[in-house]
Amino acid sequence: MDAIADYRTYAVISPITAAVMKGAHVDVTWGDGRLSPYHYIWLRDNCPCSECVYGVTREQVFEIADAPMEIKASKVSVTEGGSLLVEWDQGHTSQYDAGWLRAHAYDEVSLAEQAAERPKPHRWNATLAVPTFGYDAIMQDDEVLLAWLLALRDTGLSLVNGVPVEPGSLKLVANRISFIRESNFGVLFNVQSKAEADSNAYTTFNLPLHTDLPTRELQPGLQFLHCLINNAVGGSSTFVDGFEIAEALRLEDPEAFAALSETRVEFRNKGRTSDYRCRAPIIALNEAGEVTEIRMANFLRGPFSTPVERMLPLYRAYRRFIEMTREARFRYRHRLEAGQMWCFDNRRALHARDEFDPTTGERHFQGCYIDRDELLSRILVLQRLAPESGRGS
Amino acid sequence: MDAIADYRTYAVISPITAAVMKGAHVDVTWGDGRLSPYHYIWLRDNCPCSECVYGVTREQVFEIADAPMEIKASKVSVTEGGSLLVEWDQGHTSQYDAGWLRAHAYDEVSLAEQAAERPKPHRWNATLAVPTFGYDAIMQDDEVLLAWLLALRDTGLSLVNGVPVEPGSLKLVANRISFIRESNFGVLFNVQSKAEADSNAYTTFNLPLHTDLPTRELQPGLQFLHCLINNAVGGSSTFVDGFEIAEALRLEDPEAFAALSETRVEFRNKGRTSDYRCRAPIIALNEAGEVTEIRMANFLRGPFSTPVERMLPLYRAYRRFIEMTREARFRYRHRLEAGQMWCFDNRRALHARDEFDPTTGERHFQGCYIDRDELLSRILVLQRLAPESGRGS
Repeated sequence: MDAIADYRTYAVISPITAAVMKGAHVDVTWGDGRLSPYHYIWLRDNCPCSECVYGVTREQVFEIADAPMEIKASKVSVTEGGSLLVEWDQGHTSQYDAGWLRAHAYDEVSLAEQAAERPKPHRWNATLAVPTFGYDAIMQDDEVLLAWLLALRDTGLSLVNGVPVEPGSLKLVANRISFIRESNFGVLFNVQSKAEADSNAYTTFNLPLHTDLPTRELQPGLQFLHCLINNAVGGSSTFVDGFEIAEALRLEDPEAFAALSETRVEFRNKGRTSDYRCRAPIIALNEAGEVTEIRMANFLRGPFSTPVERMLPLYRAYRRFIEMTREARFRYRHRLEAGQMWCFDNRRALHARDEFDPTTGERHFQGCYIDRDELLSRILVLQRLAPESGRGS
Repeated sequence: MDAIADYRTYAVISPITAAVMKGAHVDVTWGDGRLSPYHYIWLRDNCPCSECVYGVTREQVFEIADAPMEIKASKVSVTEGGSLLVEWDQGHTSQYDAGWLRAHAYDEVSLAEQAAERPKPHRWNATLAVPTFGYDAIMQDDEVLLAWLLALRDTGLSLVNGVPVEPGSLKLVANRISFIRESNFGVLFNVQSKAEADSNAYTTFNLPLHTDLPTRELQPGLQFLHCLINNAVGGSSTFVDGFEIAEALRLEDPEAFAALSETRVEFRNKGRTSDYRCRAPIIALNEAGEVTEIRMANFLRGPFSTPVERMLPLYRAYRRFIEMTREARFRYRHRLEAGQMWCFDNRRALHARDEFDPTTGERHFQGCYIDRDELLSRILVLQRLAPESGRGS
């Protein structure tokens, strides 16, 4: 009866003061006056007892399809410890911790509160004071690690100083979060000018502001770019916050915003040994209309394909977005020195590189990717150990 | 002028018979009577010349934001070789291969034709004759490899015989497609009963029909399950085509279909060292309303969280879906022997395992994942070499 269904802890925000059976649900009243209905079928589904949940994995073995849809309690009560106790008409008993129950309430007020508590992006522009961290602290101190990961989640751009200039050092930093996401460019990729380039990234060209691998269904969530050598003239980095530009576009040119969030555009890689294609909007929105992702690389676009009457509005919108990425108000610029490393949200922060002159010196960066899932999971696990760092999501 | 913008070839389906300037576009008439307008801005954007496209990477270096929105041709004509030639009023010249131009036409008829040519799933039920392939042929023969990959794309379930029973052999097969997608369970995972299980998969329990890693934003596209030893009593495999069940649900219970395709449900892993969560609908639809993905694992669900008035309809729909996965009409069953391997679309084919009795013998499977992107890219590259195998896409 004491098994809980996951590894998190749920503080008791307010005690249960009453639990009353009402038709198909139980009305729970909390000390702060909130009223939360819980349907019987929901309660039976979420029984955390050791018959319903395997204690070792904390995964359910009971299936709600095996209970009757019309299941009813024969009795509900509040235990001395403050939990909700439900005795089922068919002979099972379930007990729910008050903290857990409150955290999963689905009355209107609770749902609104949960939505309000979700982390929101901190948008930025040219005046950004970039969140900066030290390699040693990230490697040794879990609190610094958590602060860095929260900056990545919320700001989407960070600078790490003091990374050893040995090739492969970025893997040590990345592994503080998780394993690395491999791609057709390898686990680690070397950003250097190559005669047989399979990407414009591997030339000396100016690279306009872009996200990496927009040709994949899931663009990589985090990108690491570690500077090993930067002795050539040129090659500065520029970043823009794609969310900031998208919000500016929504205000300044709503038709263009609509075209870019509603039209799927194809991105294609062009390779001798790979042929990735993805059709998706340049600006992705969630069900609340919030911007969740930017997908953009001019050099990886396929031809636009949309009905004739929508082609000119799409070009007008696309050009407006590109023009905005060129406006000084949005552009954060910095030139990396050896031992510095960018880590940024590749689905939000567009990055660019100035042309460089390989006759003036060497330039060698290494990069790798990690997905958003790994970042968010690592944050939640670190927050279990340091709950005072904020509740996060 | 001869550079082309990717590595594919485009057959000339019909020759250009006329090209006429009209306002903001060129009207191209084809030998089969089709009329395709191409806007000037679209044509300028897609100029494949060696100034606009870097020949080594075949990626664009020109940016359409640098041309005027009102760009016009001074002259259009058809070359002796049958290409469209456009001379721009600002002094550049572009030439478009007729096969490429037709393949990228966006008149109404062409868009409908392109949509009709997209591969469609071949749905199946209990009577499936499972597409079966031999290890040696897959490893040695690119035509067999392509046939296998097309079966994975279109049927979503396949059986491979004759895989060596040495641990790690599945990696050799997977690498015929691409690198492997790593997860928190490793690059390869061992499906065995473990005392310290971190998933119900690593117990002896019956596992109900599910997709793997529904807790991730992108569920793994392909799953490999290679049988090394299967000497215990029990442990048969069951598969259902999630697309077939979803379509049956759409017909038989449209309200339930709507609830499962419109309500985001949270999936959570429960781990000491990871805390993945994903909220997404159980049935995912594309913009045309076609089912593209199923996300389902009862033992990885978080508590349902939806407004009070929608909770009972959601449970009704969820239970109906689960009940359908238990109906004999949908269930394909087979017990793997050592040396056999399942490979299936994990975002479509739900899989289950019967309980097994570890006191009667040993059972050891190995698994790994590859994403849909890699499958589709590999198919397109193989089709370049063997164009008679169908155009696919």
